[in-house]
Parts: sequence; structure tokens; C-alpha cells
Amino acid sequence: MPKVNLKTIATELGVSISTVSKALQDSYEISKETKQKVVSLAKKLNFQPNPYASSLRRNQTRNIAVIIPEIANNFFALVINGVESVAREKNYHVLIYLTHDEYKKELEFCEYLQNGRIDGVMMSVTTETQTHEHIGRLTEKGILVVLFDRVCHEIETAKVTTDDFVSSLNATEHLIQNGCKKIAYLALSSHLSIDNKRKAGYAEGLHKYNIPFDASLVIECGNNENEAHQIIKSLLSSPNRPDAIFASVEKLAIETYLVCRELSLSIPQDVKVICFANLKIADLLNPPLSTITQPAFEIGKKAARVLFRNLDSKRGSIENENIVLKSLLIPRLSTQKSD
Amino acid sequence: MPKVNLKTIATELGVSISTVSKALQDSYEISKETKQKVVSLAKKLNFQPNPYASSLRRNQTRNIAVIIPEIANNFFALVINGVESVAREKNYHVLIYLTHDEYKKELEFCEYLQNGRIDGVMMSVTTETQTHEHIGRLTEKGILVVLFDRVCHEIETAKVTTDDFVSSLNATEHLIQNGCKKIAYLALSSHLSIDNKRKAGYAEGLHKYNIPFDASLVIECGNNENEAHQIIKSLLSSPNRPDAIFASVEKLAIETYLVCRELSLSIPQDVKVICFANLKIADLLNPPLSTITQPAFEIGKKAARVLFRNLDSKRGSIENENIVLKSLLIPRLSTQKSD
Repeated sequence: MPKVNLKTIATELGVSISTVSKALQDSYEISKETKQKVVSLAKKLNFQPNPYASSLRRNQTRNIAVIIPEIANNFFALVINGVESVAREKNYHVLIYLTHDEYKKELEFCEYLQNGRIDGVMMSVTTETQTHEHIGRLTEKGILVVLFDRVCHEIETAKVTTDDFVSSLNATEHLIQNGCKKIAYLALSSHLSIDNKRKAGYAEGLHKYNIPFDASLVIECGNNENEAHQIIKSLLSSPNRPDAIFASVEKLAIETYLVCRELSLSIPQDVKVICFANLKIADLLNPPLSTITQPAFEIGKKAARVLFRNLDSKRGSIENENIVLKSLLIPRLSTQKSD
Repeated sequence: MPKVNLKTIATELGVSISTVSKALQDSYEISKETKQKVVSLAKKLNFQPNPYASSLRRNQTRNIAVIIPEIANNFFALVINGVESVAREKNYHVLIYLTHDEYKKELEFCEYLQNGRIDGVMMSVTTETQTHEHIGRLTEKGILVVLFDRVCHEIETAKVTTDDFVSSLNATEHLIQNGCKKIAYLALSSHLSIDNKRKAGYAEGLHKYNIPFDASLVIECGNNENEAHQIIKSLLSSPNRPDAIFASVEKLAIETYLVCRELSLSIPQDVKVICFANLKIADLLNPPLSTITQPAFEIGKKAARVLFRNLDSKRGSIENENIVLKSLLIPRLSTQKSD
């Protein structure tokens, strides 16, 4: 089927292209009769105006982008559902970009999105991200940016995070109160401000109970599953092994469970385990996993609301604002006090 | 910062807009010297050509779309990772659209995507989808479509599925061999061809062992978690309850686990459970869950390869083709024979 465009309709009706274009935009310059003819033929030919051409005119794409490190991750999946719930009300489309936690990909997306495909971006940076100029270039182009969870504090805009320091302090306290004296903290990356806040909360928890901070118990596991598995295995195989694992992310707790099974270590008798997680089935694991659960859906909703409030007000940038939501500590069998 | 466009560069260099445009496209009409000046100034001003304008010229967006029913779903997350692994090689961006399993949203996306934002679409339809004209309209516009998993057989194009009938037959046989006589099949929707194939495989399995097919044991649970929970609860509360649950999707097996706990039913002693699932932690559940695991990452890769092969060959449509990958039955404790 040949491509139907404004010219096809214009030729068929013997009017100018400009008349067709104006008729489709319901312009007052065009007679009611002509409008009806144009609209009816456009419908018959299944004509869709080219959105690129029309976005050039309107400078509004009705698209927002969400840039996230990974998709097979309960936290980010829930955040996106939260964003969608707001975008749907606003009749916007949500485009999802996955960086696979690579800075190079994040940079590419930011360059790519600079030029008018979207009205706004919500993003969570990669563990590799150490600079923020690429995000600044988006805001310089008038594209609104809201950061969430894994944020860069250097960027002046709205940031939606959770109370990571306090949650982490509480989780550490929970472990200590249940008898742990030697708690290992498994981090993803020391480049992430969120990971550093969690680590600081852990250190503060130890300090509160006069347990000396031992740097050898803070272990950066990175993003590679197999490597993380080996790191945890070597940690738990040592004769001097920790009595608790505090994992900064869900997947490190899962690896810990797998390692414990390999090494025939019992949770919680031999090792207690707690982590930041949005695992719906934490309760169905063997044993049920204690979690610090972030309000992921709410984070997505909040980030989208801030973005749309600023889009609606036609501002060119978003004011600096830190929005902090509360996480919830849910103790389960994996951290229960041993008799 | 004022918007930098072709005119800005043209004015600054005292040349025509057309010269700037041609220089940026490395046209033979422009001298090397002028090209260098233009490119260097464009770089300095951080100029990005408007992709909408340039896609009008090139008619190639370097975007592909993936339309899926949900994101908090291990199967679809893995499919997308598979698609991404291929798109990355081809230097394409993957845009993800979530229908939230609503036909209305699917329809909207298909209308929206008709008009040149993308070169191709990979999609899995919603449980509500009963017609396919909206997909046909995409292909009529020259947009390549590949269907996967939840396909419409009426559309002439490539479809990537798994051996659902055989897998389902094997799972049913596995349950019967482990002593089950009264197996309930939990379906998502009778509108899905994939669900119907799985149901047919289940019926065939019963037939093979001369177990009469009982329509009251085939239960459509739908997409609402709470409703599904109640349906399963009422099924397992009946004095005449089934001795096995065969769930067509992961989330129905999870609800079954939750119901069994509520009703103090033991898995596998009181009820055996098996399901189609891509749950990485099936093995860590209490008890470990027997699964039929689809090669989700491979499905995504395969669908993307077919799409790109056809994009590369500049064909306007994809030939009808059924590509069937094999799933794997992984027996675990949840279906173990009771003594």
C-alpha cells in the first residue's frame, strides 16, 4: 500500500496541501464542508499525521522517558508501574530505556534524548556513573529531569529517594538486638550515593552499640552474579565468618541464600540475612527473608507527579528539591534470634 | 540557553541553512573546509540535529518497540533483555510499551505507532485481545511486526512461541506419574491461544492415562490477584479438592502457595504444584517449585533477529513463519511423589 500523506489527500480532493493540513487541525480558515471532506477521506485512507512533523510544530512529544539500570528487578518494575499510573492520567506515553547498568549506555541515551523525542526524563543512574555532565546537558536543552533512588546530588533538580541512612541504621540495630556481633555489609558499588548512605547507616548502627567498624566486613560485590557469588562464598567459607549478612540489594541476598545452601549453613542459626528488597515472595522463601522494603510504586508515582507538575507549568527546569519517602523494615525468620 | 538550530550555525558562519544541513550530512556538494567549520561549531554549541526532522528525511528511526502486557514479570523481563542484546549490536534503541494487559491500551499503542516513530514492533497481546485488525494496520503501514509468546495466529508474520502443547502434556504426565488423579488447571484467559494450547496439552495428558476430563477443574483465574486468590482458595477449601494444581503462569502458582499456607495444606503431601515460570529463585521457595521454564531470553533474541533480518533486507513485510522453541520441565520438591 503506498504511503498516504497530506499530498495524497490534497490531490484526491483537488485542494492544496496547506488546506488539508489546516482542515485536519480544525482551523477556522477552512470551511466546514471542506473539513468534512478532508476528515472523511483521511479516515477512509487510514491516514495518520506524522508525529515527528507535528511535534516540530507543537514542541511537545507527549512522551516521557524512564532510564533505569535493569528490568529484571522488582524495585524498578514497581517504580515503572507507578510512573505509568500517573502518565496514563496525563495521556502520556512512557518510553523505557535500559542502561544495563553501563555508563556508556546511559551517556548514549542522554545524548540521544537531548534532541526533542521527549518532554521529560526520570532516571536512576548506573553504578558506573561518576560524572553528571550528560544529565546537565539534558536540562540545558530544556528537558525536565527527575532523579530517583540512585541519584546524583550534584544535579539541581527534584530527587526522589528513600530514607536509606535511617533504614540501614534500623536494620543494623535489628541484627544487633538479635544477637549479631559481626555483621558484613554487601555493597553494589561505592560510586552510588545511595549505597554510601546505606553504608553510613550501617556504620552508625554499629557505633550506637559500640561495635568497632571493620572495613574488611564492607564488601563491594558489583553487578556480576557469578563474581558476587564467589565473593560471598569466600566470605562465608572463612573460619572467621560473619554472623550476619546485610545486603544492600535483593540479588546479593539471593546469592547469599544460594551460598548458604552450598556450604550447608543454616539461616538464621549460622548466619542471619537481611536486605533491601521488593520481593513479593520474600515470605515464601526458605526461610522467609527479612527485608527493608522501599515504597517503589510510590517512588514512581511521586517522581512522575513532580515531572508533570513542572511540565504543566511550562517551566524550563525543575527546582532543586529532595523528596524522601520512608521504607519499611519487615522482620522475618531469616533474622530471628537463635536460642 | 537559547535553542541551537541550523539557523544559529548558518548565521554565525555567514552561510545558508542548506549549506549547514548538507555539511552535517557530509554532502559532496560542500567543501572540506566548510564542513570542518560547520562540524566544529556544531560541536562547540552542543548542537544535535532534530531526530524528528532527520527521520522525515531518512524514514528510519533506529527505534524498535516491544509491546508487552506487564513488566513485573520474570518472563517478559528476560525477553526484553534478549531483545536488547540484539538491538545493541544493531545500534537500535528499544522502546518498551506496557499495556497492563488491557486491550484498550494495546489498541492505542498500535494506532500511535502507525505513524513513523519506529521501524518495527515485537509484541505479546493482552488476555483481552480478541481481534487483530489493529495489528494488521501496523503491517499495512509497512511497520514490521513480530509476535511472540501470546500471539495471534490470524496475522501473517513471524511468530516466536514455545512448545506449549507438548510441555503441558509432559507436566500433566509428570503429575500423574507422581500419583495425582485429580489435577486442576489454572488458566489466565480463554482468549489467549497460548493458554488454550496449554489447556489442550493438559487434556491430552489426562486422555493418555484414561483420566476423564472434568471441565470443572479448568479454572479461569484472570489477571486480578485478589480475585485469583479467592478462586484458588475456594477450590482448595472444597471437601473434594484437587490433589494437584497446574498453573499456566507463575503468579497463579505463587497465589496457590499463599493459599496453601493460609489453609495449612502441605505441598506436595496435600497438593502438588507445577507451573510455567521463569522464577530464578524457584529453588529457594518452601518447598522448591517444579517449573516448566520457557527460554525467555532466547525468545527475545530470536524475535529480534527475525525483525532485524527483515529490516536489513528492506522488505515491507515479514513472511508467515512459526518459530517454536523448547521449554524445559524442572521437577522439584513441589511435585514429589508422596510415600
